[in-house]
Amino acid sequence: MPVNLVPPDPAGLHPVAGLELGCARAGIRKAGRRDLLVVRLAAGARAAGVFTRNRFCAAPVRVCREHLDAAGGRVRALVINTGNANAGTGEHGLADARQTCEALAGLLGVSGREVLPFSTGVILEHLPMDRLLAGLAPAIEDLAPSHWAGAAEAIMTTDTVPKASSRRIEIDGHTVTVTGISKGAGMIRPNMATMLGFVATDAEVPQSLLQAWVREAADQSFNRITVDGDTSTNDSFVLIATGAGGLRIDAADSGAARALRAAIFEVARELAQAIVRDGEGATKFISVQVERAGTDEEAAAVAYAIAHSPLVKTAFFASDPNLGRILAAIGYAGIEDLDVDALDLHLDDVHVATAGGRHPDYREEDGQRVMSQAEITVRVSLNRGTAATTVWTCDLSHDYVSINADYRS
Amino acid sequence: MPVNLVPPDPAGLHPVAGLELGCARAGIRKAGRRDLLVVRLAAGARAAGVFTRNRFCAAPVRVCREHLDAAGGRVRALVINTGNANAGTGEHGLADARQTCEALAGLLGVSGREVLPFSTGVILEHLPMDRLLAGLAPAIEDLAPSHWAGAAEAIMTTDTVPKASSRRIEIDGHTVTVTGISKGAGMIRPNMATMLGFVATDAEVPQSLLQAWVREAADQSFNRITVDGDTSTNDSFVLIATGAGGLRIDAADSGAARALRAAIFEVARELAQAIVRDGEGATKFISVQVERAGTDEEAAAVAYAIAHSPLVKTAFFASDPNLGRILAAIGYAGIEDLDVDALDLHLDDVHVATAGGRHPDYREEDGQRVMSQAEITVRVSLNRGTAATTVWTCDLSHDYVSINADYRS
Repeated sequence: MPVNLVPPDPAGLHPVAGLELGCARAGIRKAGRRDLLVVRLAAGARAAGVFTRNRFCAAPVRVCREHLDAAGGRVRALVINTGNANAGTGEHGLADARQTCEALAGLLGVSGREVLPFSTGVILEHLPMDRLLAGLAPAIEDLAPSHWAGAAEAIMTTDTVPKASSRRIEIDGHTVTVTGISKGAGMIRPNMATMLGFVATDAEVPQSLLQAWVREAADQSFNRITVDGDTSTNDSFVLIATGAGGLRIDAADSGAARALRAAIFEVARELAQAIVRDGEGATKFISVQVERAGTDEEAAAVAYAIAHSPLVKTAFFASDPNLGRILAAIGYAGIEDLDVDALDLHLDDVHVATAGGRHPDYREEDGQRVMSQAEITVRVSLNRGTAATTVWTCDLSHDYVSINADYRS
Repeated sequence: MPVNLVPPDPAGLHPVAGLELGCARAGIRKAGRRDLLVVRLAAGARAAGVFTRNRFCAAPVRVCREHLDAAGGRVRALVINTGNANAGTGEHGLADARQTCEALAGLLGVSGREVLPFSTGVILEHLPMDRLLAGLAPAIEDLAPSHWAGAAEAIMTTDTVPKASSRRIEIDGHTVTVTGISKGAGMIRPNMATMLGFVATDAEVPQSLLQAWVREAADQSFNRITVDGDTSTNDSFVLIATGAGGLRIDAADSGAARALRAAIFEVARELAQAIVRDGEGATKFISVQVERAGTDEEAAAVAYAIAHSPLVKTAFFASDPNLGRILAAIGYAGIEDLDVDALDLHLDDVHVATAGGRHPDYREEDGQRVMSQAEITVRVSLNRGTAATTVWTCDLSHDYVSINADYRS
């Protein structure tokens, strides 16, 4: 049951000049569903990406990195399949990913290293290459600039809602578009990026700036979410600038650059939060804000300790203000010299804990009121510095167990 | 549903000379259940303990440490309540723990600092001191050397089975007894010790050796288990030597010391494993063995990544050989230079993965066979060193969510 998340209105997903999307039913894992997406980019398009830091990274992630390096960010196509992650597949998997790129490149008349491959789905199984390759031609036939909604749907795995976000803004007299899609619901604790996220703009952006923005955007969006603390083997977040619109960005510190950067970050954050809203079994959307920490690492450690605690997450599921579980998580976050008597804990506007115990004004019914909401902010002030961070997560419900106990069946 | 764990046979729990146990129904949280335990020790008894490293450690944990230090390990009584953890209770909670010790000391005619207090249960609520203090006299009336089974029951929270273990061995012509109890089912990732574990022997053991053994025993037992990765605020493991039997240990390297140490460690390991077997919602008992790691820390990081992964744990619950999830967990365990092509993964006797992918001989039905068992060993060989470790955990089931969503209601 996604939390305040509805399928995107296709009319609200603005086409990005220089970019077309096409889907096919390749039968990768299940017959009849659209599971293969091809994205074609105009000549001159550039991309930058951030990828999983899981050492067991999937074959397509390795090939993506190679191709981005080899072509200096020049990209003409993306190919994305769902149903099979092509991870834990060794040399065979690398060969499959490369063959997929070459086959698509041949059909589009571009170079293989200008194609980026992405896969998501079950780990430790080989791609059904015959069916995947046979799906490329129908996907190409389907190419159109307006097919964002279908693309968002084609990359879903256990997602229940397609995820897309779009902005159209005026910069220096140009109408600039930023549109993106993402997928992911489980195995979500991105550590560079999320399962799959793609954001494109029609502005022209230098490669160095694109690379900086994709990292910063990931740090403020996909790297701040967690569903179950499991970092995927396939996390990939790619930022594309087709350059086919009128705007050309030259310097990072221009007003135009700042406006475009803000729009890109906004889309990335919305896509990242959509993954949490549709987290496997999620019934609550939780923002964990840690303030006045000594360092960024300390703030993140406390935020993730809370966001990953199964006991905290089941309490949210139960709408039970069993808030001592949050204090316990703060306590084991690894800050050796933490003074627990100095910290404050708020749940939305309710002051829960202070001076090492319950706040004198705290009343169970106030905690209960906030815990019953679909969106809740946990705010921890460590009162020992100036660092702060926010992490978004969801609760842990029966449906999480059901979904993951049944995923392959 | 505990995994291969039955209530202890009271006749198999050997009394420890110099130690008596008594329980009372104090109504700490629920009326009518035995929730208060007093342990009386003969003059000359010594104890050593290891305690939670959670910074939000409970008031009784702080008082335990103070008293052990102040009295040089001389202990005359333990007082343990369930239903309320006296954690996150600030100065008020410390005063409550101290008052409990003083009251019991007065009734027993000993010094307050010779009493060790323990609490387990809900966090962030004050102890009902009137009811707790009123329960001390009936608990004392109940004191008897044979009441180990009742004591194991009195300290339970969400445990479904009382946990106790006992050995009687001959050392140097003396019959020596080692008997212990433990409790814990959720909020289990001990980081020094478990929720509550008490092991006693009637041998006489010097304080320095007792302290060394309690740490080593914890490291090989309670510090190697995890249910949900949540380190409790109240973890305490105490090793008691009453000295009331005939055996006196003088040197760590004597045959007698080695024999007694082995019996103590065996009891501690059995008590620790019992906590996992009775882990909240557990249907499987999983041993995660990591071998040929570069360092102990590396071995532990990989073992805990597997043992904590909600995706791995739900796959065990489903008896689904979705073993790529184990590879993904190994991959995100934090070993930056891990060569995933070099490692091997076994599930019991089945060789699952090698050379970065599925083992050529692996068949789904073999994985299925092992996954259907109630006890499973995951064996990871990193092939990069000589360090090794074992961690015990359980699966993640619907009942875990139910238990923790309903715990306070």
